Amino acid sequence: MQHALQVARQGLGHVEPNPAVGAVIVDENLNWIADGFHQKFGGPHAEIDAIAAAGERTRGAELFVTLEPCSHHGKTPPCADAVIAAGFRRVVIGCQDPAPHVAGNGIARIQEAGIDVAVGVCEDEAIDLIAPFRKLMLQKQPWVHAKWAMTLDGRIATRTGHSKWISNEQSRAEVHRLRGHMDAIITGAGTVRADNPTLTARPAGPRKAMRVVVDTDGGSIVSDGNLLKTINEAPLLLCAAEASATSDHVKMLAGLGVEVFTTSKTDRSAALAQLLAELGRRNITNVLVEAGSGLLGSFFDGRHVDEVHVFVAPKIVGGTGALSPIGGQGMAQVSEDASINSMLVQQFGNDLLIEGRLRSSAS
Amino acid sequence: MQHALQVARQGLGHVEPNPAVGAVIVDENLNWIADGFHQKFGGPHAEIDAIAAAGERTRGAELFVTLEPCSHHGKTPPCADAVIAAGFRRVVIGCQDPAPHVAGNGIARIQEAGIDVAVGVCEDEAIDLIAPFRKLMLQKQPWVHAKWAMTLDGRIATRTGHSKWISNEQSRAEVHRLRGHMDAIITGAGTVRADNPTLTARPAGPRKAMRVVVDTDGGSIVSDGNLLKTINEAPLLLCAAEASATSDHVKMLAGLGVEVFTTSKTDRSAALAQLLAELGRRNITNVLVEAGSGLLGSFFDGRHVDEVHVFVAPKIVGGTGALSPIGGQGMAQVSEDASINSMLVQQFGNDLLIEGRLRSSAS
Repeated sequence: MQHALQVARQGLGHVEPNPAVGAVIVDENLNWIADGFHQKFGGPHAEIDAIAAAGERTRGAELFVTLEPCSHHGKTPPCADAVIAAGFRRVVIGCQDPAPHVAGNGIARIQEAGIDVAVGVCEDEAIDLIAPFRKLMLQKQPWVHAKWAMTLDGRIATRTGHSKWISNEQSRAEVHRLRGHMDAIITGAGTVRADNPTLTARPAGPRKAMRVVVDTDGGSIVSDGNLLKTINEAPLLLCAAEASATSDHVKMLAGLGVEVFTTSKTDRSAALAQLLAELGRRNITNVLVEAGSGLLGSFFDGRHVDEVHVFVAPKIVGGTGALSPIGGQGMAQVSEDASINSMLVQQFGNDLLIEGRLRSSAS
Repeated sequence: MQHALQVARQGLGHVEPNPAVGAVIVDENLNWIADGFHQKFGGPHAEIDAIAAAGERTRGAELFVTLEPCSHHGKTPPCADAVIAAGFRRVVIGCQDPAPHVAGNGIARIQEAGIDVAVGVCEDEAIDLIAPFRKLMLQKQPWVHAKWAMTLDGRIATRTGHSKWISNEQSRAEVHRLRGHMDAIITGAGTVRADNPTLTARPAGPRKAMRVVVDTDGGSIVSDGNLLKTINEAPLLLCAAEASATSDHVKMLAGLGVEVFTTSKTDRSAALAQLLAELGRRNITNVLVEAGSGLLGSFFDGRHVDEVHVFVAPKIVGGTGALSPIGGQGMAQVSEDASINSMLVQQFGNDLLIEGRLRSSAS
């Protein structure tokens, strides 16, 4: 199953809004026969990929698959039927499919065919692997990644607002890699005004993210700004307040190809919930928030964040007036609620990248 | 030389105010014969320790030693003479002794005896090893370690001031280990008032640190506080303003065994420079600053910090009003000046410990 999980990860960024799935076929002595993974959205599922590679050798073999085989006709015929037809002796499944139209039906179908089925092998990892898909299925919202780069004393800018550059080139390249795996990148008016960002992945990754700017009146998006200049490279969505929908500026933006989504809530955390529900409705699986202290604060205050990517640079800034990564209201107590399950550390040159998932988001 | 450096590290915490030194003796084919290190202050130096272990086999052998052998009579006779008497064919030295009364004299003495000498092998590491000793010799000030524990969003307390606990038990045990290697631990009035700390190492380490409280009028040190309760366990120094030296409270503290040092400077960074000079005069090699945002800010503003020990807990606090580790004035620009040479990461349970030395302090 560990091997199946590893194989599955190759599909991340290519398969969404489907989950990444891996499958391994072994003989009765657990000798490897073939493996497969879901390689791209619309393409064959992992089981089918592995069965095709194994050919006749599936008879009497065992199938390890990270996720329950599907039981419905979607872009491809049901995998449960193909698994039964392949004549496996035993099927070992990482975790059940959270999608309401599967949710155990695939397992039941295979068991009814008289095949020995085990479910829940390496279950935590199997669930972790599809966490964004699972959230989309169960909560109808995308998985929210928050990214920031800070100094070793936890600052994203000095007291004068200076911040170029805290992280090094290798770290910034990793941010582009991350962007290339996202369906949307969300930022705020402050960041657009201060940095005039493009928010595209350079070089391009497997996915092209929609750029989303949260800005009450859209005033940060200006004609000669990089976002409008690159309107043909990736979609641009303005998340504005209802009242400004009829303003001349917003109408001008709409005319230039900017999609406008308006929120009725004036509380920003609540407005973000509306935005995330809309993105979920569009089957957007992963969003990356690249924003300043204020917007990130609203995301955390609303408990909208699932995973963090924190670059730590070997620098000290200090100063009572220097900027911290997460503003907003914040927690009153240091509590377990907002803790990270476990931190994974990587090195990019002299910078560290610390990644983790919020405990409240974990399975 | 790598082996000699490793052997030397065993002396750290035991030898101060001497430098930690390691020595390895090998034959003409570089086969290991013996090694030695400076084990405790007043005890034999590394070369003597290794020569004793090698016995007659030093004749025609090679000596690798991390620091230039001394040329003067101190607590022990000059090592250069012992090295010459041992009949080495060749002596390989990591770095020159920064102490003004040695500074090349040991090397010259050995060369004059007709022995082949190489200096500067693994020199950066050899200098790094004795950085605190080197600062004490050259600047007459102790090496200043700053320690803090912060959340993954760079906070040491929530907006309400709540901070117990950010770091976990394993991390706090590591802080006690660190304290046990220090000559002094410096804190401020705010921390004494908020935490009522003891500032002793539990369990005790190789060194017993003097506790130093930086507090203008000494008001934070109260009769039923833990610092006074443990006055017989470790010395307590109050660093106060000159004006308060004659106050009843300070006189009362002096009467209870608190040593009082007064600074004439009203600017806190300048006052800290006076304190560090006084500690240097006392041959204090390593001091640990365990303080809140304000005092740490003054230490950084005065460029007094040489090394940082940062615990990062897998928690998110957020909030515009939450406390950051380093207050004070801070830097105007993200600059190379205040950068860390390289960060070393260790894991304590789910916490990370990131350690590094300020580039400006490096050799």
